[in-house]
Amino acid sequence: MDLKCVVAVLRPDFREVLERRLGAIHVHGMTVTRVRGFGAHPNLFADDWTTEHIKIEVFTGADNVDALVTTIMDIAHVGAVGAVGAVGAVGDGVVAVLPVEKFFRVRSKSEAQP
Amino acid sequence: MDLKCVVAVLRPDFREVLERRLGAIHVHGMTVTRVRGFGAHPNLFADDWTTEHIKIEVFTGADNVDALVTTIMDIAHVGAVGAVGAVGAVGDGVVAVLPVEKFFRVRSKSEAQP
Amino acid sequence: MDLKCVVAVLRPDFREVLERRLGAIHVHGMTVTRVRGFGAHPNLFADDWTTEHIKIEVFTGADNVDALVTTIMDIAHVGAVGAVGAVGAVGDGVVAVLPVEKFFRVRSKSEAQP
Repeated sequence: MDLKCVVAVLRPDFREVLERRLGAIHVHGMTVTRVRGFGAHPNLFADDWTTEHIKIEVFTGADNVDALVTTIMDIAHVGAVGAVGAVGAVGDGVVAVLPVEKFFRVRSKSEAQP
Repeated sequence: MDLKCVVAVLRPDFREVLERRLGAIHVHGMTVTRVRGFGAHPNLFADDWTTEHIKIEVFTGADNVDALVTTIMDIAHVGAVGAVGAVGAVGDGVVAVLPVEKFFRVRSKSEAQP
Repeated sequence: MDLKCVVAVLRPDFREVLERRLGAIHVHGMTVTRVRGFGAHPNLFADDWTTEHIKIEVFTGADNVDALVTTIMDIAHVGAVGAVGAVGAVGDGVVAVLPVEKFFRVRSKSEAQP
């Protein structure tokens, strides 16, 4: 099966919700890293342009990517007050899909499906 | 030469052994990140489903990938008590291989072999 | 447009300079992670072979990759004392370019250019 790595850089507030929601949709593995970052609108008035974010990495089959990306964006999207539809906020973050060539599970010492 | 990035998410206990063993097999560069994660069996009884892991990233030529993956899995695999063969434990972690298009060494400001 | 992820592992001292310089050349998003690593010359005399580094990740269009890699190497390259040209130092770090298949901005819940 074709494998992908879904990488998301998101506000740190969503970590717990994401963990539980992704666990519930049978994402069988997720890595969370504390990072700092800035996006299209860095805070140029601060000494440090970056703010705290989390990076999520999930290895998954290609056929699960669309559902996973949609779920992540639904959770991480902060609707502006009074906004209708897909009007998020600066700093909501990004999601990227990277190709993966091989995937192994250490437990069985063999190639596996993520 | 064809380049790859070998990514492993493993128990944190193995960090020091991994560093020394990989250094010994001429892995000329390794990045270690403290992460949290869960795999196929998250601890659903804990407030936080994730546990502490380390993420290892190694840039390497395609012809070294198999030996490197085998070495990582040999080190990171925790045999169940009394088990024979490849019977690891929940939480042993995963290894993935990602394609890399270009690799540069800052020291020489030029493309290089990892 | 063809998308890439530029990954750099560099000395931690350059973090602030990098953030400001990359922001200035319209890199609209950058993630910084504190990592530990060793390169071609680990400090074998220390208990811990790794030293503190930062990992930079930037999602960008393929046509910006060359300029971005050059900028990162110019900033991160430590000239040896009295050296002429591209004579950097051990530990200067590495830069790699990985392929990216899709990129989404959470704010608009849609595919976007990084």
